[in-house]
Amino acid sequence: MAKEKTKKPRRPRAETPRGFRDAFGAEVRARDAMLRRIAEVYHSYGFDPLETGAVETVEALGKFLPDVDRPNEGVFAWRDEDEDWLALRYDLTAPLARVYAQHRQSLPTPYRRYAAGPVWRNEKPGPGRFRQFYQCDADTVGSANVAADAEICVMLGEALEAAGIAAGDYVIRINNRKVLNGAMERAGVLDPADPEADVARRGVVLRAIDKLDRLGLQGVRDLLGEGRRDESGDFTPGAGLGADQASIILDFMSARQADGGATCARLREIVGASDIGAEGVAELESMVELLAASGADEGRIVIDPSVVRGLGYYTGLVYEAELTFEVFDEKGRKRQFGSVAGGGRYDDLVKRFTGEAVPATGVSIGVDRLIAALTEKGRVSSVEAGPVVITVMDRDQMAGYQEMATELRAAGIRAEVFLGGGNMARQLKYADKRDCPVAVIEGGDERARGMVQLKDLALGARLAANIETHADWAAQPAQIEVARADLVAETRAMLARAGG
Amino acid sequence: MAKEKTKKPRRPRAETPRGFRDAFGAEVRARDAMLRRIAEVYHSYGFDPLETGAVETVEALGKFLPDVDRPNEGVFAWRDEDEDWLALRYDLTAPLARVYAQHRQSLPTPYRRYAAGPVWRNEKPGPGRFRQFYQCDADTVGSANVAADAEICVMLGEALEAAGIAAGDYVIRINNRKVLNGAMERAGVLDPADPEADVARRGVVLRAIDKLDRLGLQGVRDLLGEGRRDESGDFTPGAGLGADQASIILDFMSARQADGGATCARLREIVGASDIGAEGVAELESMVELLAASGADEGRIVIDPSVVRGLGYYTGLVYEAELTFEVFDEKGRKRQFGSVAGGGRYDDLVKRFTGEAVPATGVSIGVDRLIAALTEKGRVSSVEAGPVVITVMDRDQMAGYQEMATELRAAGIRAEVFLGGGNMARQLKYADKRDCPVAVIEGGDERARGMVQLKDLALGARLAANIETHADWAAQPAQIEVARADLVAETRAMLARAGG
Repeated sequence: MAKEKTKKPRRPRAETPRGFRDAFGAEVRARDAMLRRIAEVYHSYGFDPLETGAVETVEALGKFLPDVDRPNEGVFAWRDEDEDWLALRYDLTAPLARVYAQHRQSLPTPYRRYAAGPVWRNEKPGPGRFRQFYQCDADTVGSANVAADAEICVMLGEALEAAGIAAGDYVIRINNRKVLNGAMERAGVLDPADPEADVARRGVVLRAIDKLDRLGLQGVRDLLGEGRRDESGDFTPGAGLGADQASIILDFMSARQADGGATCARLREIVGASDIGAEGVAELESMVELLAASGADEGRIVIDPSVVRGLGYYTGLVYEAELTFEVFDEKGRKRQFGSVAGGGRYDDLVKRFTGEAVPATGVSIGVDRLIAALTEKGRVSSVEAGPVVITVMDRDQMAGYQEMATELRAAGIRAEVFLGGGNMARQLKYADKRDCPVAVIEGGDERARGMVQLKDLALGARLAANIETHADWAAQPAQIEVARADLVAETRAMLARAGG
Repeated sequence: MAKEKTKKPRRPRAETPRGFRDAFGAEVRARDAMLRRIAEVYHSYGFDPLETGAVETVEALGKFLPDVDRPNEGVFAWRDEDEDWLALRYDLTAPLARVYAQHRQSLPTPYRRYAAGPVWRNEKPGPGRFRQFYQCDADTVGSANVAADAEICVMLGEALEAAGIAAGDYVIRINNRKVLNGAMERAGVLDPADPEADVARRGVVLRAIDKLDRLGLQGVRDLLGEGRRDESGDFTPGAGLGADQASIILDFMSARQADGGATCARLREIVGASDIGAEGVAELESMVELLAASGADEGRIVIDPSVVRGLGYYTGLVYEAELTFEVFDEKGRKRQFGSVAGGGRYDDLVKRFTGEAVPATGVSIGVDRLIAALTEKGRVSSVEAGPVVITVMDRDQMAGYQEMATELRAAGIRAEVFLGGGNMARQLKYADKRDCPVAVIEGGDERARGMVQLKDLALGARLAANIETHADWAAQPAQIEVARADLVAETRAMLARAGG
């Protein structure tokens, strides 16, 4: 005990937890503005906002169970005093399913909601991979109508454009899990009369087609068949499909034609003999018709059976938005930016709670990836103009300096009085750090003559090198003397010059 | 094991965790709009946004330590796989202190930031008391200048008005912990030469003055003296101050005069003989001067030594915004709405990390309380107009209905096609539930003639009773037939009538 007391308390470390980060200034404003623009699109389509708490019961989130000690499979979870397990939400869909089941008596059907906010994953962080990130979702719960899916795809395109992605810079690809199931049936690994049979084998097929991007068609063919030996010599056993069976799956994945109608016709050739497959093709045909009626550009929203991401998770139509422009990765290699949003039909999420299947469809935009993309394209600035800074030559004149700031703000100009300590050099250094466009200077001399100095810091940064005294920079052309009475008008004029 | 397997899995409960809630539609939009308006005021004063993660290390948050099992004193905390204790932030100030300490080499000084977002408290929830709620803060770190405090008070008033509080409906009261300390010194319970002495007794004094609202001056006088016996007969021991000593504290609390200058003069009489007290009075005098220069209304921002909340926590100036209009509480009694924001000077928060005291001042607006206040005053609507709903008479005409929605949206009118199932009665019930102002109806008959029906649901709700068939409500005056080509213009006209 005595020993404890003599220990000097260690100072706490000032660190974000591993995988978390702080967002400053321009980044926060850019994200807020983007979320607002996307939300306005969702809202214009009739979706209503919903904001659930960050915390859900582990029971409601599902996906895992607290058994031995602590459920840490991908979520941040803890045990409450009431012995309930609580967790931070890992996406916005699971809370939606809980909300719909909880409030379904009072909610309209269909229930159309959008939501934007952070989600948390207890995963290993990496470069550009954080444990808290933003999603922005829209879902229609309680409608089995393909029109709900078509609307989401059209709306997704509009949302991306509202966020700043040019019309030619994205493509939304559509596929259908039912068509895949039709192909599975035709390939002999799915028996509609006994859907539980061959589950494991279908899992191998799903994992194989999920590797299309990485391994190409031949790699997938190997994994559908006997298996595949990679460059290191490791062997991955395959699904054991014969060549004809595997061809059906591969034909499905390569079925894209010149337009949606032709793609649907090709898919019907491949899976039309399967009921579920034919149903899936009919849904895609409806999509093509509805998208055309919505005036959607065929080049921007396409039926593409090679889209395999999400086919394991969703139950019907799936969609994915990719950015098509090229960027350089961290190793300097050119690559397509890739996916920024995805969605589809999930008809079983509410069933967990109520026992009743509720058809639902929705989309989730990965906001942080979208901002990263726009930053790469130079469409989001990482710097924002700072406030006009009123420097303080005479500390007993604070009231007068505050008056200047009040006048500028009343005219809609962001402004502040320097509130720290230090000489003029230090104050101008502060103004620079704030990306201040104009600094205002008033010493006793100016005050006596009813004048103030305005310093154009954007211009000044280009002209000046090392400035230490008042006299020095008074000689700069980037600085002008104006009447105190003209402070607002002259500041506005200088800001306009700086902006132009 | 066999027994386990035969157990039927229980369905998960669809419930928010205790103390959490879901916010829908109009409420979410009202809060977003309010946060945006407050943020714009903060921004115009030169503050920059900061968004930290929801999760901090327990070490960085401070206030408690994980000792035996789990630190659950007011926060949600859990142990990470790395054995670090993590927790959800309980306010926005503790993360700010961590950020400033972590990034102080690259941040400007003073660092002026605003932040808005949820915070979490692991406390017993009650009526209107939740475990997740919103705060919206602005702080200046690294300035000891009273001008920083004056600016915060003026900005707080502007923020409240931007949020919708009328100029006459709030008052910002200012006090100073240093003046209290001066009164403590004059009352003989604070020795500047030995500041650690009498700590316990000063605690009793602080708790006594904190009860002014509830017990009145006589109750506080008893608690400053020998103690107080309440109506139930329970006795609370007092600070043991003599009558003269207690009078100094009570004089301080009742020192408010007709204007700020007179209040300062009165305070100087009471505590001027104490160095710390005189320093505190001088700060209040500077406040009075700076507030006048900012054009602040003396009735809206006042020096009021009876403001005692926060005197224990803050180290200098404290401020509190109260709404002055009366509301009825849950028991139907009239009462003032009370506090919606508070702040002050806290010079030691960063010191925990760096060992170096950093002067700081800031304010926190309780956003949920502010929304509750505005809702009571009828200035925030809990209902928002829903979208125009295009009903579906013929399910094979979805593409045509979607075209209508697209046209309306292109004209800036929120619109959606009904995507659920059911007859017209069910569709109109949906439209009602969505607070839809106008429903669009097009059956085969209308389509053949190039017409659509527009139903004014706001008006219709007043006129109609029970409507089951198309023919019935076609007879209602709340419904008009217009040319399909005029859909947008006629809908806009009907919305204008509904809005007027």
